[in-house]
Amino acid sequence: MTTSRKAKVAILGASGYTGSESVRLLLRHPNVTLATLTADRRAGAQMRDVFPQFSPFDLPQLVAIESLDWAKESFDLIFCALPHATTQKVIKDLIAKSPKTKIVDLSADFRLADTAAYAKWYGHEHHAPELQPEAVYGMSEIYREQIKKARLVANPGCYTTCAQLPLIPLLRAKMIDPDEIVVDAKSGMTGAGRSAKEAMLFSEVSEGFNAYGVGHHRHMAELDQEFTRAAGRNVTVSFTPHLVPMNRGILSTIYVRSQKSSAQNFSAEDLHAELLKSYAKEPFVHVLPFGEMPHTRHVKGSNMTFIGVAKDRIPGRMILGSALDNLVKGAAGQAVQNANLMMGWPETMGLEQIALFP
Amino acid sequence: MTTSRKAKVAILGASGYTGSESVRLLLRHPNVTLATLTADRRAGAQMRDVFPQFSPFDLPQLVAIESLDWAKESFDLIFCALPHATTQKVIKDLIAKSPKTKIVDLSADFRLADTAAYAKWYGHEHHAPELQPEAVYGMSEIYREQIKKARLVANPGCYTTCAQLPLIPLLRAKMIDPDEIVVDAKSGMTGAGRSAKEAMLFSEVSEGFNAYGVGHHRHMAELDQEFTRAAGRNVTVSFTPHLVPMNRGILSTIYVRSQKSSAQNFSAEDLHAELLKSYAKEPFVHVLPFGEMPHTRHVKGSNMTFIGVAKDRIPGRMILGSALDNLVKGAAGQAVQNANLMMGWPETMGLEQIALFP
Amino acid sequence: MTTSRKAKVAILGASGYTGSESVRLLLRHPNVTLATLTADRRAGAQMRDVFPQFSPFDLPQLVAIESLDWAKESFDLIFCALPHATTQKVIKDLIAKSPKTKIVDLSADFRLADTAAYAKWYGHEHHAPELQPEAVYGMSEIYREQIKKARLVANPGCYTTCAQLPLIPLLRAKMIDPDEIVVDAKSGMTGAGRSAKEAMLFSEVSEGFNAYGVGHHRHMAELDQEFTRAAGRNVTVSFTPHLVPMNRGILSTIYVRSQKSSAQNFSAEDLHAELLKSYAKEPFVHVLPFGEMPHTRHVKGSNMTFIGVAKDRIPGRMILGSALDNLVKGAAGQAVQNANLMMGWPETMGLEQIALFP
Amino acid sequence: MTTSRKAKVAILGASGYTGSESVRLLLRHPNVTLATLTADRRAGAQMRDVFPQFSPFDLPQLVAIESLDWAKESFDLIFCALPHATTQKVIKDLIAKSPKTKIVDLSADFRLADTAAYAKWYGHEHHAPELQPEAVYGMSEIYREQIKKARLVANPGCYTTCAQLPLIPLLRAKMIDPDEIVVDAKSGMTGAGRSAKEAMLFSEVSEGFNAYGVGHHRHMAELDQEFTRAAGRNVTVSFTPHLVPMNRGILSTIYVRSQKSSAQNFSAEDLHAELLKSYAKEPFVHVLPFGEMPHTRHVKGSNMTFIGVAKDRIPGRMILGSALDNLVKGAAGQAVQNANLMMGWPETMGLEQIALFP
Repeated sequence: MTTSRKAKVAILGASGYTGSESVRLLLRHPNVTLATLTADRRAGAQMRDVFPQFSPFDLPQLVAIESLDWAKESFDLIFCALPHATTQKVIKDLIAKSPKTKIVDLSADFRLADTAAYAKWYGHEHHAPELQPEAVYGMSEIYREQIKKARLVANPGCYTTCAQLPLIPLLRAKMIDPDEIVVDAKSGMTGAGRSAKEAMLFSEVSEGFNAYGVGHHRHMAELDQEFTRAAGRNVTVSFTPHLVPMNRGILSTIYVRSQKSSAQNFSAEDLHAELLKSYAKEPFVHVLPFGEMPHTRHVKGSNMTFIGVAKDRIPGRMILGSALDNLVKGAAGQAVQNANLMMGWPETMGLEQIALFP
Repeated sequence: MTTSRKAKVAILGASGYTGSESVRLLLRHPNVTLATLTADRRAGAQMRDVFPQFSPFDLPQLVAIESLDWAKESFDLIFCALPHATTQKVIKDLIAKSPKTKIVDLSADFRLADTAAYAKWYGHEHHAPELQPEAVYGMSEIYREQIKKARLVANPGCYTTCAQLPLIPLLRAKMIDPDEIVVDAKSGMTGAGRSAKEAMLFSEVSEGFNAYGVGHHRHMAELDQEFTRAAGRNVTVSFTPHLVPMNRGILSTIYVRSQKSSAQNFSAEDLHAELLKSYAKEPFVHVLPFGEMPHTRHVKGSNMTFIGVAKDRIPGRMILGSALDNLVKGAAGQAVQNANLMMGWPETMGLEQIALFP
Repeated sequence: MTTSRKAKVAILGASGYTGSESVRLLLRHPNVTLATLTADRRAGAQMRDVFPQFSPFDLPQLVAIESLDWAKESFDLIFCALPHATTQKVIKDLIAKSPKTKIVDLSADFRLADTAAYAKWYGHEHHAPELQPEAVYGMSEIYREQIKKARLVANPGCYTTCAQLPLIPLLRAKMIDPDEIVVDAKSGMTGAGRSAKEAMLFSEVSEGFNAYGVGHHRHMAELDQEFTRAAGRNVTVSFTPHLVPMNRGILSTIYVRSQKSSAQNFSAEDLHAELLKSYAKEPFVHVLPFGEMPHTRHVKGSNMTFIGVAKDRIPGRMILGSALDNLVKGAAGQAVQNANLMMGWPETMGLEQIALFP
Repeated sequence: MTTSRKAKVAILGASGYTGSESVRLLLRHPNVTLATLTADRRAGAQMRDVFPQFSPFDLPQLVAIESLDWAKESFDLIFCALPHATTQKVIKDLIAKSPKTKIVDLSADFRLADTAAYAKWYGHEHHAPELQPEAVYGMSEIYREQIKKARLVANPGCYTTCAQLPLIPLLRAKMIDPDEIVVDAKSGMTGAGRSAKEAMLFSEVSEGFNAYGVGHHRHMAELDQEFTRAAGRNVTVSFTPHLVPMNRGILSTIYVRSQKSSAQNFSAEDLHAELLKSYAKEPFVHVLPFGEMPHTRHVKGSNMTFIGVAKDRIPGRMILGSALDNLVKGAAGQAVQNANLMMGWPETMGLEQIALFP
């Protein structure tokens, strides 16, 4: 479908980084009209007041969510970039009043199919359990067909997208041992959001490096869910996130072993071939030549994921690398990709930007 | 003209930063086919080998300039991103053999109308003085009409673009004293190019700040030329460039006095009004509300220049700020803008990207 | 004096950056015992909880100021690194109860001799005007003799130290025109302190550059006071501060003209000679060879100021550069230097560290 | 021994980062006179020309190594910070002519006891195999007694120091499975040295993150040697180095399993207790409270190593973190520590500096 009428779109939570990144992409999307931007604490302000890069552009004034009448507005499409927990309530209300509106939710609120797992990891009951069954996990390359038909898509986390794209085809193909996966992940600072916390100050972050959330990070729940689906059995991986003094980008270094139970031993070259085959036609997943490892800088600002495969010097072990921009393929870019699928538009529409390097 | 046939384009010097930035922009330009990329020292390599962000895209193999037959190739348009001095020789040869090809030169080789000034600042004779008269100085907003008719456009320097956009309208309007201008300029590191020099290593640059070229920097010659033209009398400004530990962006902080000889004293508000008026219809120059000062981060990756005007606390003195991305409006973006003008295409074509912040 | 008994020292406000920098220096000072550290909001915590780099060292637990009995504690020396306004009240109380304690105040509260000027710039009445007359402005190289006898020293601001060291000898010698001084200053982010503000987040700051406080910054009051004293007439300078994406360091680029009223015209070489002479014996001010400009990275972590002098290409104009570490010579280091003077210790004691570069 | 006569010291290779860091530390070392600094390519220059931070200090002019007469100079102590391969030849010559001189070699040339392993990893024959047996591997905490008696100490690599300090006590105690160790290491850019390479330019490095040397990095040879010694059996670990856009610091995130063959299963708490016990009296190794992970910023500029231990959520797996400054404990600092041991001086002499944070 190429519409003569542009879709009427709202972005909820436009004053955060995933919100502003959604604005950046959608302002240039040919099929979209940005009708409404919300930012509860900044209601009444202009977008330029919270993100001066939009100063030259005409954008609607920021409003509070509660000032919106969902039925009357009747949005075609909503990007929901709100904090978790409030999201479930907002979407529940929205769907009740405007059931035809399609929603891409960038929060974690609908990512876990198991509402009990949600309650465990997020510390409170799910506020819209009746909607959870219809929510489609929005890893575009994996669930494309379901996303096309969905009303509510739960856009995946940035760390999880980065780890799942290289691992899911290998788990599905039973080429690697699901009990021996270590994911060492490194993220730029925009992943921590825009809230004013001492630990995120420039002076606390620059010229240093550290791990955090060791042994307990909420993205683990998503990893478990999707790896378990892919492997057809329970999978729990070692996962350690780190903070890099840079703005954008996630790099995952992933240590795997060849599937032991297999009659066959798989080599790094076998894994590389499998990933090449899996992603041969994907516009946003690029498998590097064997032995090359990805840099986050080469995907910055783009919706691309770069994947590399190399031999370890230990027989039977392999090392995977995966890099994406946490605000694009790890958030707003994949959200647009999913919206394109949901609306029947070309999947790459509005996402053609090439990485900004250097 | 909106072509059914796309223009056949070459980029000479694709392995440097202005070259790669030209590739980034032109690869998504709807009227352009990137037919040829040159890189003498990397001839035979693929673009992905020198800039891995292009790995997913189909691009021609890098070739040496001397392997090209200009007459046979008959390019519609050439972006020349070669080092100075070699540029004059290459363009001389090119124009002799393919006189209909249009050229945007990103080097300094054709910026100075006075070939004696060129010889003085660059330390060698001009190699194509007979071409100099037809070269149009490519400050798009100032010389738009001449650029439209030009065959050879000398794309301005990054520092000079940043300083000229706020100052030229004020000098033309005789609102500021031409003898009392201080331009304190700060640039990101990509301005220094991609050559492997010890002083440009990460460890030498990060976590520090310094001036360089104090009292003598080649962009001064361009500033003199254009300010003198605008003021209708000789103008020499104090200009000091600095290096900022960031990749992209130039910020100029400019100290001016109201024109003394004037019957009238001009205020900061008067200057602001003049700039607002001058740039009211310009797509790529944005004058901020009075008193606001620009940040380089809000123009990064875009072709935009942000200008601010504020009062100094000293009566009669005003402070101007100007910010642009040295690789876009300061180089490849303005080159595309000029090419659009030369080819009769919409001026903003291929340049719609919004700044990448954060 | 080299004491057999170490001085009993307290640091008030140890959880901020100037406080922690004072701890860093004093923990290795041979004549000092760090007896007390205060941090009102973190009272009860250990220093390692707020600054983990101190984890291996034995330091007193953080306490609230109000829990201290000044008379009973009878500190020899206090470093006061509290926010302005509260400082005046605390010091008033302290001096009343423990009149023999010597105090170095790192806030702005006692820097302005004119309490009316204080009220104007800081927006509230001075809370201890009766103490202001005895407060000595702590620019060590300028007021050394007064500091030696002082009970209360007002440690100068970071920007002001950086601008005053090159300018005061030249104003005193009447070599430069006091009406034509432009100070374009650039500071690392630690100058903004440790408070959790959105504008200071890593993602807001890195990869960008901007001016702030244009036309109105509180350090102007200090500059006016000291330049007026040095010149023996009213002096108001143009001063614009900028933020650099680095942690430590201030660079001031200063544009001056030779004194017009002088019979003699002074050259850049004359200025250089005057500065060389002025600082020949100073351990912490280093005048670079003529024409060389300082880098902040070469003084990082040290108490050193580097000063450079160069010609401008405009006759009669000169460019000065000055670089220091805002947390050392611009704050805690100069505070220790002043304390050494006040206590009769060698002026360089505890300040011998060489810059950490790279 | 506290000498009345200071030791006569030379630093070979003073124009690189490990050389300049040695100068920084030794210039303030109470028992040392820096008699000679060499820098072959910069012979004749002053140290300030290659590292301006030394501008205020009196240092000998840089000379070429070949201009030195070892016998005549009769140095007490030499820090050798030369590139590998040339080092062996220089030290061979030096020891032949001045057999009483003590040497700390910061290169890799004498680290591998097995000269065949050296030849394999470094691509050429060992040039001084007859000296190898007397070379002591300079991990100060592990080989303290041997170092005290050594004439030639091979200072360990930065990555290896960072990985060995947490792992060696655990391997010795047979608490972890030697076949299941993954070391994911991240280093600041000074680790790459000062040579002018395109890949090390600021614009290539900042705002990005990547792995390198995947599957083959020379520090692996050192790791194998020392882990094998500690475990009493062959050990080969997975090791992947990464580059962080910061100057100083290495963080190793280490994934281990409890020793399977053991009757007992060891917990993360057991590992933590073992490390606490092992390093209880060490001045430069600090084990953080259980569950806390180290940041490189908290050891920057100091000789300290911070070690953390945390549970993984997978039963039987644990995560270790280790952080040091690659130029201090990872190079020049440990070299001074070793020199102190060799000379009979207090081990911490000249190394008391506290980390520079922020």
